[in-house]
Amino acid sequence: MDFTEQTATAAVRDSIAPGTEPRLTELFVGLVDHLHAYVREVRPTVAEWAVAVDFLTAVGQKCDDTRQEFVLLSDVLGISMLVETINGQEVGTESTVLGPFHMTESPRRASGDSIDLLEGGRDCVVELRVLDPDGAPLPGAVVDIWQCSADGFYDVQQPDVQPPGNGRGLFEADDDGHVWFRTVVPSHYPIPVDGPVGGLLGSLGRHPYRPAHIHVIATTEGHRELITHLFVADSEHIDSDAVFAVKKSLIVDFDELDDPRAAQRYGVDVPFRRARYDIVLNPLSAGEAA
Amino acid sequence: MDFTEQTATAAVRDSIAPGTEPRLTELFVGLVDHLHAYVREVRPTVAEWAVAVDFLTAVGQKCDDTRQEFVLLSDVLGISMLVETINGQEVGTESTVLGPFHMTESPRRASGDSIDLLEGGRDCVVELRVLDPDGAPLPGAVVDIWQCSADGFYDVQQPDVQPPGNGRGLFEADDDGHVWFRTVVPSHYPIPVDGPVGGLLGSLGRHPYRPAHIHVIATTEGHRELITHLFVADSEHIDSDAVFAVKKSLIVDFDELDDPRAAQRYGVDVPFRRARYDIVLNPLSAGEAA
Repeated sequence: MDFTEQTATAAVRDSIAPGTEPRLTELFVGLVDHLHAYVREVRPTVAEWAVAVDFLTAVGQKCDDTRQEFVLLSDVLGISMLVETINGQEVGTESTVLGPFHMTESPRRASGDSIDLLEGGRDCVVELRVLDPDGAPLPGAVVDIWQCSADGFYDVQQPDVQPPGNGRGLFEADDDGHVWFRTVVPSHYPIPVDGPVGGLLGSLGRHPYRPAHIHVIATTEGHRELITHLFVADSEHIDSDAVFAVKKSLIVDFDELDDPRAAQRYGVDVPFRRARYDIVLNPLSAGEAA
Repeated sequence: MDFTEQTATAAVRDSIAPGTEPRLTELFVGLVDHLHAYVREVRPTVAEWAVAVDFLTAVGQKCDDTRQEFVLLSDVLGISMLVETINGQEVGTESTVLGPFHMTESPRRASGDSIDLLEGGRDCVVELRVLDPDGAPLPGAVVDIWQCSADGFYDVQQPDVQPPGNGRGLFEADDDGHVWFRTVVPSHYPIPVDGPVGGLLGSLGRHPYRPAHIHVIATTEGHRELITHLFVADSEHIDSDAVFAVKKSLIVDFDELDDPRAAQRYGVDVPFRRARYDIVLNPLSAGEAA
């Protein structure tokens, strides 16, 4: 058979040896099908394809121990979130992307502690309940929290400014499934734009900002791990996250409170902001448990 | 609108600013459409997608001044050849991929010269005619030739073994459009397999070999440049080129000849091999000429 526009895809598919691992075959054949369909549709010139190869090469070369430009590319193409969504749970709190800043262990803290070691932002209280799908509390559930500062930087990005563990805390739910902590309202912030992905966003007229959010990983025995964000409802860019991670059910009101007695109870100053959210974890299925 | 499996593609498409360069928009939107369709079809787990990101990162990191692993990936996916084919000419000699070894200038040689400076392989004569689509000769056409040795290596791969310019020659067609030269029959050879693309081929049970071929670039004023190969018809892997570059019309018989008088005329020993091929160049269209 001759290599033509029509026979190209079958030629690549047929090159796979019989006996190849079935899932790899499925992933590879699907990729070839879709990429060839793309090429047949947009009909790139040889020069355009060379630009694409140079771009992908630059993305790979930008990666190092602390920078993952291909994750960033996957993020801005909406693919990270699509994969996340496809693998999400039917019930319980929705998941979203992990992000690149869960790189150090969060310090253990007690409910009521402050995760703000800088004392530079707006006082904020976050109250969480960890529940099962029937609304029963999950005592002992572990809630891992990390967020950026009021200036939009994580502790690991500003080692000279922020003490390690600023904005981070590992909490354990009490008998009622409750966890609460003091913090500052995080800021929206840009994804890194000094690499090829930033260049792509610029060419497409897209801004690089993520709306303000607090990261959460919630785990407890016998339940599926949940990786998600709580988004600050009135944040800039809440409707246009550069990495498409916002789901409606994860948008949380950070209410402005002016009640001195409540402030005293929480150990904060008036006015302060308060967010309340129920985290619902799914029991493991029989298969997942085994 | 919420981010769901159904709304994901529109969300990414809608993030592009109005006024973005139309061709970039077309290329980007098409890519997002097809990659999202791929993800929805094969439904990768989060772990599988992480493997894909790690693979692409390794491909990028393998690239340097003399190694282009992303071109190799494009090659083994059949995309380089599909792009080449889509941009090919309707009439005239078919094109194929340039390949990575056209990196040094070929030395000027006269018709009848040998491009084999090693004198280590089987004597071979290649006779070419450069013609227009009506069969009229194109005197003065320039034919750039490069090939690997009988052991399957290009001069640049073996600087300690091969003198620079071995296997290369820049020829000018005579008044009849003729070019001929002496050489050795090139060998089939593997593409580089010490990187992630080699690992992928291994996982798919695919061999890394390219059938034996001689590279050709033919140019003359007023005609479209032709980049192609002449494939040795009886080479190993002629039906399974690892980069899918074989087109039927480019397969050339390298006939075994045992005629002492012909051998003397060419200045070779019996038995020798001879390949004859007509290279047909297309006149530039009015648009291309301008």
